[in-house]
Amino acid sequence: MKRILLLGAGRSASSLIQYLLHHAATEDWHLRIGDISVAHLQPLTDALTYADLLVFDVHNERQRAEEVAQADLVISMLPAAFHAEVARECLQKSKHLITASYVSPAIRELHEEARQKGLTFIMESGLDPGIDHMSAMAVIERIKAAGGQITSFKSYTGGLVAPESDTNPWRYKFTWNPRNVVLAGQGTAKYIKNGTYTYIPYHQLFRRTDALEVAGYGAFEGYVNRDSLSYRELYGLRDIPTMLRGTLRRPGYCTAWDTFVQLGLTDDSYTLEGSQHMTHRSFIAAFLPPATTTNQSIPERLSAYLHLPVDGEVIKKLAWLGLFDETPVALPDATPAQVLEQILKAKWTLAPGDKDMIVMQHLFEYELSGEKHTVTSALVATGDDEVHTAMAKTVGLPVGILARLLLQGKIKQQGVVVPVYPDLYAPVLEELKQYGIDFVEKDSRVGE
Amino acid sequence: MKRILLLGAGRSASSLIQYLLHHAATEDWHLRIGDISVAHLQPLTDALTYADLLVFDVHNERQRAEEVAQADLVISMLPAAFHAEVARECLQKSKHLITASYVSPAIRELHEEARQKGLTFIMESGLDPGIDHMSAMAVIERIKAAGGQITSFKSYTGGLVAPESDTNPWRYKFTWNPRNVVLAGQGTAKYIKNGTYTYIPYHQLFRRTDALEVAGYGAFEGYVNRDSLSYRELYGLRDIPTMLRGTLRRPGYCTAWDTFVQLGLTDDSYTLEGSQHMTHRSFIAAFLPPATTTNQSIPERLSAYLHLPVDGEVIKKLAWLGLFDETPVALPDATPAQVLEQILKAKWTLAPGDKDMIVMQHLFEYELSGEKHTVTSALVATGDDEVHTAMAKTVGLPVGILARLLLQGKIKQQGVVVPVYPDLYAPVLEELKQYGIDFVEKDSRVGE
Repeated sequence: MKRILLLGAGRSASSLIQYLLHHAATEDWHLRIGDISVAHLQPLTDALTYADLLVFDVHNERQRAEEVAQADLVISMLPAAFHAEVARECLQKSKHLITASYVSPAIRELHEEARQKGLTFIMESGLDPGIDHMSAMAVIERIKAAGGQITSFKSYTGGLVAPESDTNPWRYKFTWNPRNVVLAGQGTAKYIKNGTYTYIPYHQLFRRTDALEVAGYGAFEGYVNRDSLSYRELYGLRDIPTMLRGTLRRPGYCTAWDTFVQLGLTDDSYTLEGSQHMTHRSFIAAFLPPATTTNQSIPERLSAYLHLPVDGEVIKKLAWLGLFDETPVALPDATPAQVLEQILKAKWTLAPGDKDMIVMQHLFEYELSGEKHTVTSALVATGDDEVHTAMAKTVGLPVGILARLLLQGKIKQQGVVVPVYPDLYAPVLEELKQYGIDFVEKDSRVGE
Repeated sequence: MKRILLLGAGRSASSLIQYLLHHAATEDWHLRIGDISVAHLQPLTDALTYADLLVFDVHNERQRAEEVAQADLVISMLPAAFHAEVARECLQKSKHLITASYVSPAIRELHEEARQKGLTFIMESGLDPGIDHMSAMAVIERIKAAGGQITSFKSYTGGLVAPESDTNPWRYKFTWNPRNVVLAGQGTAKYIKNGTYTYIPYHQLFRRTDALEVAGYGAFEGYVNRDSLSYRELYGLRDIPTMLRGTLRRPGYCTAWDTFVQLGLTDDSYTLEGSQHMTHRSFIAAFLPPATTTNQSIPERLSAYLHLPVDGEVIKKLAWLGLFDETPVALPDATPAQVLEQILKAKWTLAPGDKDMIVMQHLFEYELSGEKHTVTSALVATGDDEVHTAMAKTVGLPVGILARLLLQGKIKQQGVVVPVYPDLYAPVLEELKQYGIDFVEKDSRVGE
């Protein structure tokens, strides 16, 4: 019997738990699920002999040491900040590890020691990072094997709502951590295009979007992610002239979101004095220049300040959020970003029955035998409902599949590993098809 | 004999050194001046028995301990980051300390211990912070003593060039640390106006300026400083409805500087790949969207991007800086802010004979016996030349005067002290007049 310790049983773990339980009997696994709160899983595991629950506190060193010592494989779906501690514990107790989070510098440091101990720490094995790497590498390896030279790679991913749940003027609802959505894009976005490095500061980011089309799903817009450059090394495309990674939204979202950025509402670096006494309206007013005429309304002041039509789409979107209402904020010592997050949560939370949608689109250009080609590789995955979301499936299933491969001894890579190798990504992409997570590819020769 | 250890002998210390040497014989002082490089002071001190020089390295713990141990008073004009270490040394060796820098949290922590040891650590005793506190408190105390109620206090300071040296289209040259000028304003500016807290994010800061007039010196514009709110407590104006502090520039500067902010050129948080191979022109291009037509020039692309007239004042100012030229950058691993600083230094350095100018203007509103009043209190100080600048005089002289008062036993305050008390500021303001550093005040009743 193999013992799996799964740490973190939040929203994004639902499909992973389902996958692990489904295979537990045939694979002879025992699954132990630990989180601060696990009561919601009781009905699921009570009837099963091969699964149990524990109340787990990552800050409890003794518990952490004891639990990791008893496992054969640890899967951590905890917030990324805790992974270094879990990884060091795995190293000490000689246990394998899988997470869906980025390789942090602290994790990277453990590579050599993990390798020497014959351990495999698979990181970046969810959706983004995860499926993005796997699906991109499948295309890249195929083009390279055929002798092609890749000249451009743009890749966009978005966690959105399915068409049937696309019911608000923003065409957006929260399908993962709202805080991350509010803070997304802060810093400077860096990419390379036609051999020229390009830098977009945060306050221009949502103004410099690209228009995209995904066959069968209509129009989207993409804003550039903070880091596109490091992917050249990771994907073996060191000298590629164009490399860009972005985030997808429905058209109109970015222009409206830009008002939050321009006003300063996404700032998380200081607290607002007297935030508990604010209303939505006075919150906005604190970021506006003084009124230029008496009786000038907040939407009028905002429109004049940011050069927006007062009866246009942006102001409509903001009004729909209740941003101009006298709704109390009632959060003490809140940062602007925290107030904004609360306002958005009241409107952007998935309703019962709502379905989310993951869209990922890779756009390649390559040259082969003197001819130019483009490849479009697109994934659209839809959630079953507001619990078994597309986000939970696309994040959790690749983790589960890699766990099975690892416990079956089919993964030979050791140390800190990211799934950019065919022996990792090929079987995962293949098995994901069974769950409807399947890329549609189109390779076209560019007409001369 | 009293021994003064002066640490830091850079540009801003020239007038302070002059003041201390001038008084050394009559006050029976010995002055020891330490800096990384002190050779430039040799001609000055060689002939004097009461002054000597040492090559001083603040990171050399033994030297620091030995030198502080031999002094009666330490004056630190080192960069602010080193003051905490110097202050802890002073505490250990029971020595007084004066600096022209802000009270940092690390310095604030030393207050109680310094007080118990009977030591005086006078901080914020230069120009800004320093003369701003002293001159403001003189007005505030007078209004309060007369029974007035202060309802508004706006205070602006600028280090600029004197009219006779005002010879470039920016109407600005560097009169202090260029790096600080490039990074000025980053973060969010916070102030209160008519009882309403107002927040201006950095990317709006140079667009939301106030127009000001200083009698005899013409028009200025002011942008808001990052922190205006903490001055309420410091000045005993806890419930004042309007409190704003700002920085002065000549009209047109802020609009042109805003292009740097909008492009992202003042960012100091990351390095540019291949910066050593850039030219001014390619540096700018890296922050622009792609050209929309062939042969579109950089000024045309910039104008289109930021909605500026291509033949307007802003583009002229940028062109005058050589920003569109193929001048090599030649700085390896530079941040955008470092490249910008180098470009500006080539054009904004004071030439021989150039005179700088400090402008400080306080604007008060108060109510007395049911009548509304305004007070304008303004200082204009002009440098003698490019060495004995107004900056060096206004920063160094109050430090020197406070040093004399302290060594004469005239300052009774103990612990970490800021010059907001009459026994500190009154004699300093009085003596500064001898050096032409004098505020012109006007108190007017507002016509009903």
